[in-house]
Amino acid sequence: MAKPTLQAPRGTRDFYPDEYRLREWLFDHFRRVAKACCFEEVDAPMVEHAELFTRKAGEEIVQQLYHFELHDRHLALRPEMTPSIARMVMARAGGLRLPARWFTITQNWRYERMTRGRGREHFQWNMDIWGEPGVAAEAELIGAVFQLLDALGVPAPAVKIRINSRALLEESLRAGVLAKRPEAFEPLCVVIDKLDKIGADAVVEQLCDGAGPIGLAPAAARDVVGLLEARDLDEAAARAPAGTPALAELRRLFELLDAYGVAERVVFDASVVRGLAYYTGVVFEAFDTRGALRALCGGGRYDRLLETLGGPAIPAAGFGFGDMVILELLKDLELLPQLARPVDDLVYAFGEDQRPAAIRVASRLRAGGRRVELVLGTPKLKRVLGDADRSGAKRVFLLGPDEVDRGVAAVRDLAAGTQSEEPIEP
Amino acid sequence: MAKPTLQAPRGTRDFYPDEYRLREWLFDHFRRVAKACCFEEVDAPMVEHAELFTRKAGEEIVQQLYHFELHDRHLALRPEMTPSIARMVMARAGGLRLPARWFTITQNWRYERMTRGRGREHFQWNMDIWGEPGVAAEAELIGAVFQLLDALGVPAPAVKIRINSRALLEESLRAGVLAKRPEAFEPLCVVIDKLDKIGADAVVEQLCDGAGPIGLAPAAARDVVGLLEARDLDEAAARAPAGTPALAELRRLFELLDAYGVAERVVFDASVVRGLAYYTGVVFEAFDTRGALRALCGGGRYDRLLETLGGPAIPAAGFGFGDMVILELLKDLELLPQLARPVDDLVYAFGEDQRPAAIRVASRLRAGGRRVELVLGTPKLKRVLGDADRSGAKRVFLLGPDEVDRGVAAVRDLAAGTQSEEPIEP
Repeated sequence: MAKPTLQAPRGTRDFYPDEYRLREWLFDHFRRVAKACCFEEVDAPMVEHAELFTRKAGEEIVQQLYHFELHDRHLALRPEMTPSIARMVMARAGGLRLPARWFTITQNWRYERMTRGRGREHFQWNMDIWGEPGVAAEAELIGAVFQLLDALGVPAPAVKIRINSRALLEESLRAGVLAKRPEAFEPLCVVIDKLDKIGADAVVEQLCDGAGPIGLAPAAARDVVGLLEARDLDEAAARAPAGTPALAELRRLFELLDAYGVAERVVFDASVVRGLAYYTGVVFEAFDTRGALRALCGGGRYDRLLETLGGPAIPAAGFGFGDMVILELLKDLELLPQLARPVDDLVYAFGEDQRPAAIRVASRLRAGGRRVELVLGTPKLKRVLGDADRSGAKRVFLLGPDEVDRGVAAVRDLAAGTQSEEPIEP
Repeated sequence: MAKPTLQAPRGTRDFYPDEYRLREWLFDHFRRVAKACCFEEVDAPMVEHAELFTRKAGEEIVQQLYHFELHDRHLALRPEMTPSIARMVMARAGGLRLPARWFTITQNWRYERMTRGRGREHFQWNMDIWGEPGVAAEAELIGAVFQLLDALGVPAPAVKIRINSRALLEESLRAGVLAKRPEAFEPLCVVIDKLDKIGADAVVEQLCDGAGPIGLAPAAARDVVGLLEARDLDEAAARAPAGTPALAELRRLFELLDAYGVAERVVFDASVVRGLAYYTGVVFEAFDTRGALRALCGGGRYDRLLETLGGPAIPAAGFGFGDMVILELLKDLELLPQLARPVDDLVYAFGEDQRPAAIRVASRLRAGGRRVELVLGTPKLKRVLGDADRSGAKRVFLLGPDEVDRGVAAVRDLAAGTQSEEPIEP
């Protein structure tokens, strides 16, 4: 047993070849979907100035920051990708052609208690659209999530997306309990996001906490929770101020999602607000309909984030889709693929005298685009053939003294079970 | 101008779409070569316990560690990948099928002064072979570096690889000036590695420093520098103890490299020791023959690293190939590709009423494997056609009120300059 300090830090993962192949398979799906939608991949450093992430809305994500002082700078490992993307957009705001469609696949860090489907690092696929104010952006993003699920083979009933609008909630509250305290809206959303986890009573209690940033009267807090119970757009309309634009937007979004062919896979849910403080409009999350797992992805519109950072107002919407929960779901649904080590040909020298000839054969095959394992050392042929079999290799090239003298390699075709000869140098 | 804390930390890079495409192009080449050689990709967390990296041999890499205390743990961003790989091998030492051929493409961090081709983070392609004691491993690794250079289009005379053996130097020194102080060998290599940078006099001075870990007499230090002047294997043989196995290994390595077809591209150079303390045998580095850039890659044998960490003795060899110097070289040689934003088709709705139809067309094309930009908003058609032209798109699908009424899209073929119609739903 290695010393604890010679193991990976708790909550982090090593990716051995088997796990890496699975990760690569998943990321390839992320990339293929994003590229099918003509999103462009970008990246930013995993270490940023901590200030980019420290907001004052009491989100868990900020409390869980990996941050540290180094050479008089306050740095942090990114807990999520959106602030870095916002920083990049801000730096080129004048010259960037909008709308910009960007995607990232990055590792993010949060120091938190570990549960199923969550460690202290995870990879997240993000897709963001900058510069499009209308819900066509949200529709395109939600459409992409379903494209991914379809490509992974997830049956349609297994995952649905809940949709709400923070703007709708905000309009209702500004017409009511938050009329005089609009600044309480962001922290209020952070509390409401915990509804599923902590229950309505605890939410009411936190909304009423006089020492906190919200401090509602109990009746007002219960009114807020009441707003979250609307389960379709008509119910929501009945509770919202008349003629609210947020409601019209939601109706339009559902119309567009019908054109994407996913109307049966989305539901309105007034209790969805998502835990990030910066969302301003439509919010959504994909969930396992069995209720066994955390959200598979979360996203929404964040039209004011750039201004918060001191940049111009550029409307934006996006989502983050983690690698861990989807892998749990695919495992539960028995949809994980078996991925073998990919080998086309093995090249085997019977002795070290034949190694140069084996190298010539391997080099020639590789130059021709084959994936070639040059067997190192001189293990028993039986072991080599066993390895070849397990990896699904097609051919084994054998170089013994007799073959090399004649300038050939013996070629065993593993599928056909036949053997022939090929010149070492063509 | 954004606040400094809202810019990327100094020495780090943002990858906007253009830069990301170039990075992806380079990484694809790394991956293709590694896979052609049947190496398997792995990964480990970028944050490790600092102890994994803190060695006592005075290497720059350790002095430049990004490290910090967090929740009572001493953590560090990896400065290089090999220790993490060693940790992973150690954790499965009993069950791992050897030889194991692993590769990684990871971001590594060093807090250092920035120069051309070096920031505070860089990406590095590593290939490592675990469990092969013979120079067939080094030959396979060096062969892979040349495969990459060929695939990138680098002309053969532009880059060569210098090869030496620390074992050869160690055998000479143990028979001589280090006979009684073998532990001084690793720090001595760290000093010698600076020869090119600081010159022979400064090296002699550091070797003689009585306060340091080496403390040679001036004559002995000059003898050491003399050993580094051998420029071919015969010269090296004349200075080495008779019958040294390290020399036979080097001769065998050059023989194998001839079989790889790269004999003209490798040179023996007794002054190459590489700056990492843990190398034990063959060491090598690829260099720009113009002498304008730092080493493109460095590698070698490190048979004792696993024991140093408390694991079993497993022989190993590998190299690290950074992303920054090769990009500088490709730029200098005008070999960087022009990579356009990849778009197959654009789909354009003349008004928001036609958006659902546009979505149907885009969804159908994407499901068929096309990369489709769904134009958001309703920009002027002229602008859309200009974008299509710049991205090299093949077709533009146009949906106006008339087309949608008739259930069709107008399809403009940009290469042929023709226009036809296709049903919205096939």
